[in-house]
Amino acid sequence: MKILITGAEGFAGSHLVDYCMEQGDEVWGTCKSGARTVNIAHQLDHITLRIGDLTMPDFLRAVLRENKFDALFHLAGISYVKDAEREPALTYEANLLSGIHLLEAVRTLSPQTRVVLVSSAEVYGPVAPERLPVTEDYPFAPPVSIFAAGKAALELAAHPLIKIYGLHVVLARPFNHTGPRQRADFVCSTFAEQIVKVENGAAPILHVGDLPPRRDFSDVRDIVRGYRMLAMQGEKGEAYNLATGHSVTVQEILDTLVNMSKAKVEIRQDPSRLRGANQVMDVRGSIEKVKAATGWVPEIPLEKTLKDLLNWHRTRLTTKG
Amino acid sequence: MKILITGAEGFAGSHLVDYCMEQGDEVWGTCKSGARTVNIAHQLDHITLRIGDLTMPDFLRAVLRENKFDALFHLAGISYVKDAEREPALTYEANLLSGIHLLEAVRTLSPQTRVVLVSSAEVYGPVAPERLPVTEDYPFAPPVSIFAAGKAALELAAHPLIKIYGLHVVLARPFNHTGPRQRADFVCSTFAEQIVKVENGAAPILHVGDLPPRRDFSDVRDIVRGYRMLAMQGEKGEAYNLATGHSVTVQEILDTLVNMSKAKVEIRQDPSRLRGANQVMDVRGSIEKVKAATGWVPEIPLEKTLKDLLNWHRTRLTTKG
Repeated sequence: MKILITGAEGFAGSHLVDYCMEQGDEVWGTCKSGARTVNIAHQLDHITLRIGDLTMPDFLRAVLRENKFDALFHLAGISYVKDAEREPALTYEANLLSGIHLLEAVRTLSPQTRVVLVSSAEVYGPVAPERLPVTEDYPFAPPVSIFAAGKAALELAAHPLIKIYGLHVVLARPFNHTGPRQRADFVCSTFAEQIVKVENGAAPILHVGDLPPRRDFSDVRDIVRGYRMLAMQGEKGEAYNLATGHSVTVQEILDTLVNMSKAKVEIRQDPSRLRGANQVMDVRGSIEKVKAATGWVPEIPLEKTLKDLLNWHRTRLTTKG
Repeated sequence: MKILITGAEGFAGSHLVDYCMEQGDEVWGTCKSGARTVNIAHQLDHITLRIGDLTMPDFLRAVLRENKFDALFHLAGISYVKDAEREPALTYEANLLSGIHLLEAVRTLSPQTRVVLVSSAEVYGPVAPERLPVTEDYPFAPPVSIFAAGKAALELAAHPLIKIYGLHVVLARPFNHTGPRQRADFVCSTFAEQIVKVENGAAPILHVGDLPPRRDFSDVRDIVRGYRMLAMQGEKGEAYNLATGHSVTVQEILDTLVNMSKAKVEIRQDPSRLRGANQVMDVRGSIEKVKAATGWVPEIPLEKTLKDLLNWHRTRLTTKG
């Protein structure tokens, strides 16, 4: 397939580049001007990259005029909840308006292209415990974060474009995912980075936020495999969870990572890392729908994911320093 | 109160200008460059108008820097469903992005201003008959129109701005409303206009679309009174229906208007006016919530609304020709 990935240099984007290259795809990507391309440095000779701003409609239109793609994966956007809250307007432009421009560009220039719009499990908001693992028909509650609202709003905006104009758009709702290359603002990656810094001689203190919440953690490499399967086999207009169906506490993640290292660390709660009253206590996604449509199931156990994440930080921090 | 109305020159906007002037408010308005201001021609000496494009963030920011408003009523946008479907991207910019820029301008420059964000009953989509009259907690279904999606997406985008930053935003969900000054693309107004044209000598044929659907029709003057009451007494973050609680068929509207005229007309169905399979067969809104919060109830009977609409077209078409 000839495919286009927006946000190709990002965490999930770079893994999708790798996976699609393995599958023999011709891979094109977009990334922002000035973005660090370290995640795809090993692929830069093999893929075609176009640099530009997706909030400007003409950028993607030019890329779609240059080429016909079989599939377009829209991953670009602001993914960190706290970044989103610092800059609501920028977040809505990056995560909502860009998506609308993208769908409009596809509608007018390339309506046969299959689009995987990467939404988020955050669209569900807090889910009643008796409705876990949550299924895709769970109604949207008023969103509690800018990030969640941008994703939910983009899903709503996409629907009539699918219904009225017949665009082939599939909505992916990934739950938490981690693995190598994840920036250390996210919980697993900050734990792993701190542990590696202790291994390298830093003060043996590990700063943590809320430990009791339960989350459904996948490996990023499983998630991107799901995106590609959804492009080929997902039904247009449908949303699909990508998850494991099980949740673990943040405490368990922490314990697993600490036990993988010889470093001895003291755990210290950091008030600035606490999310406060809006914290959702448990999230799990049902994967029956994606399994039925595509056969996708997660394959990489959380132990391996966390080990790879730790080793990635070890390599990175050694190389650097 | 000192108030600002976006889309002040529009159908509902102009009635809100009139109502607020009657209440003794100092009224400011925005309208687009090149917009026809015929609806507020009689008020132009009494209000302050600022001309500009709400999709450009700097326009409203300049207005909010100039003045502190007690209340801001956001009515501007594309209101006709078929216009929205011709121009999805423009519609999302006008109806969704402008609203986000407006809320961000309020957040950063004037957080104490009370905002009434005019959404729409369309956010509910098709409502299960046993859930009529629909209450505000009815979950959003995937929207079937660009117009509905833009309004629903804006509501979602507004929520975290209210929750996280404490903005005083009230969401108004008006159901169908009509009355003098409504453009003849809308069902009541096109019937009335066609009847007046027959009175004035045109061929006695009245072109109609779907007649069986039931809608909850209010008088625009009741609706704008509701907006002002919501600004003063609505609870922030809450959505309120503005409706009558009852629905009538389009056929009944047609019969009422025809019976108000001495003109004899032949009714002819026009395929281009049919909405097709996406047509919602019945809509009625519960008004218990707005009544409890503000005491608002509709006051103008539909007969009077339709008579005033007919007389407005009579005056307008006589003046013109």
